[in-house]
Amino acid sequence: MIGSDPLPSWNEGSTKKSILEFVRGVTTAGGPSFVKPEERIAVFDNDGTLWSEQPFYFQVAFVFDRLKAMAPEHPEWKDNPLYTAVLAGDMKAVAAGGVKGLLEVAMVTHAGMNTEEFAKIAADWMKSAKHPKFACCYTDVIFQPMLELLAYLRANLFKTFIVSGGGVEFIRVFAEKVYGIPPEQVIGSCIETKFEIVDGVPVLTRLPALNFMDDTVGKPVGINRHIGRRPIAAFGNSDGDLQMLQWTTAGKGSRFALLVHHTDAVREYAYDVSPFGKLDVALTEAAAKGWTVVDMKNDWNRVFAFDAVE
Amino acid sequence: MIGSDPLPSWNEGSTKKSILEFVRGVTTAGGPSFVKPEERIAVFDNDGTLWSEQPFYFQVAFVFDRLKAMAPEHPEWKDNPLYTAVLAGDMKAVAAGGVKGLLEVAMVTHAGMNTEEFAKIAADWMKSAKHPKFACCYTDVIFQPMLELLAYLRANLFKTFIVSGGGVEFIRVFAEKVYGIPPEQVIGSCIETKFEIVDGVPVLTRLPALNFMDDTVGKPVGINRHIGRRPIAAFGNSDGDLQMLQWTTAGKGSRFALLVHHTDAVREYAYDVSPFGKLDVALTEAAAKGWTVVDMKNDWNRVFAFDAVE
Repeated sequence: MIGSDPLPSWNEGSTKKSILEFVRGVTTAGGPSFVKPEERIAVFDNDGTLWSEQPFYFQVAFVFDRLKAMAPEHPEWKDNPLYTAVLAGDMKAVAAGGVKGLLEVAMVTHAGMNTEEFAKIAADWMKSAKHPKFACCYTDVIFQPMLELLAYLRANLFKTFIVSGGGVEFIRVFAEKVYGIPPEQVIGSCIETKFEIVDGVPVLTRLPALNFMDDTVGKPVGINRHIGRRPIAAFGNSDGDLQMLQWTTAGKGSRFALLVHHTDAVREYAYDVSPFGKLDVALTEAAAKGWTVVDMKNDWNRVFAFDAVE
Repeated sequence: MIGSDPLPSWNEGSTKKSILEFVRGVTTAGGPSFVKPEERIAVFDNDGTLWSEQPFYFQVAFVFDRLKAMAPEHPEWKDNPLYTAVLAGDMKAVAAGGVKGLLEVAMVTHAGMNTEEFAKIAADWMKSAKHPKFACCYTDVIFQPMLELLAYLRANLFKTFIVSGGGVEFIRVFAEKVYGIPPEQVIGSCIETKFEIVDGVPVLTRLPALNFMDDTVGKPVGINRHIGRRPIAAFGNSDGDLQMLQWTTAGKGSRFALLVHHTDAVREYAYDVSPFGKLDVALTEAAAKGWTVVDMKNDWNRVFAFDAVE
């Protein structure tokens, strides 16, 4: 009967059961929890939920690699402590600069080209860069159980969206290929762009200014602005996802909220609070509200596609 | 053979032929113009393209009706010339206030409630308000040929989007029912919203501040931010759509751009330049670039569903 299990990487138990029961409920025509297909909206955080976010957000690795690649043309950077720290790989000094510092470096590396040029740079990086622990492409450090969950929901006529604090144009480079999520179903943070005609060709130039931060209270705002209806299921892993889960579960009818708890130091990482990913308040609220919490170590029989099935 | 015509409200001729040939080209597997289904993105302006925009944008009528409904609770408005003009139905004085004045009134009537309250107010208005010329609901003042075009494109696996200067949450109230376009495929102007917990309930409160104006150069920006890939077909009717058509047609491969030219004073309206809708620069560019221009009077054998077929 292995072939009939839509979630083979999920061990039997209450976590898997909660997913199957929710989906059965909203798809049972005539049942008390039935939801019309067009309203079956499911939203997924990306970093730490669909793929790993350790030892740092993958987009941070991209930013740092870009800064290194650009450094030869910017000798003036050696007088800037933040840039010097990045170029030296001094993550502690970088972390001390906080979000503000990271954003500054992100702007330098993400703006100043048009949207098509940026997509090519990001795609090229994604093909060549390697994860420091797993030594494979970042797009292989994706949680196999979550891929099965995405496919299972879509087979049940859910529309699956990414709602990420990461950059929307960065995620769109790989989301369709690796998650089966088309660009128009990716919501993320973004910088300003400007339409202009350059040498007779219309382009969208990327500007070094933040337009929208799709994190914490920004997630429901982004969902409403982009999707325009409330999801019935939300999947996250950190306090940055709390408001998205609150917004989703406050709707009428059957609702589902899930947090991925990183408890597996061997196959992935074990952490609650880290510079990249913090699960604190949301874990408390999950317990109070009966949200599903994935214990990665015990609920998943494999984490990545390259893992042997345990 | 009437039943086999996907565009029965379109008269035979070069306009209809250009549409049919474009669609045949991009859907012919193995042909030189073939486009994969997931890349068949079509974007439609709303006011003047899918429904009428005369004698004023329908959302302006909504704003004015709202202001009148709210006036009894705001005696201080009688000292404000703009509000007095609106309440007196003095459209000339209102027009003199320009976009800035309209935006001010829009903010007063569109903010200060949460998103669900606003949707209910807009939906109730849409059920009861009547168009001044046609004396029917505004959602009946929709161009029948464009409904057929939407259905025809979707039957050919296009994904159809609205890209409007109008308010996104206003359009979403009726777009799914009347156009078959779900909320997540509506892009529009929007105001700021704020996530907050009110009496223990998560809400999105609408704030009196513009977040994004989805018109002229904003349309390609909105398309890129929301859809994340370039459309292959764009449909508009005014200079406000010019950049959207430029952006669409500048892509590689087969592309299609169409402008609805309002030439029918009897069945709808005849105008090029009006306070609400201006077709000037875009018409010149259409001629230069060979874009399709609909001559409403001659290309459509009926304009509205309530028209007799001519």
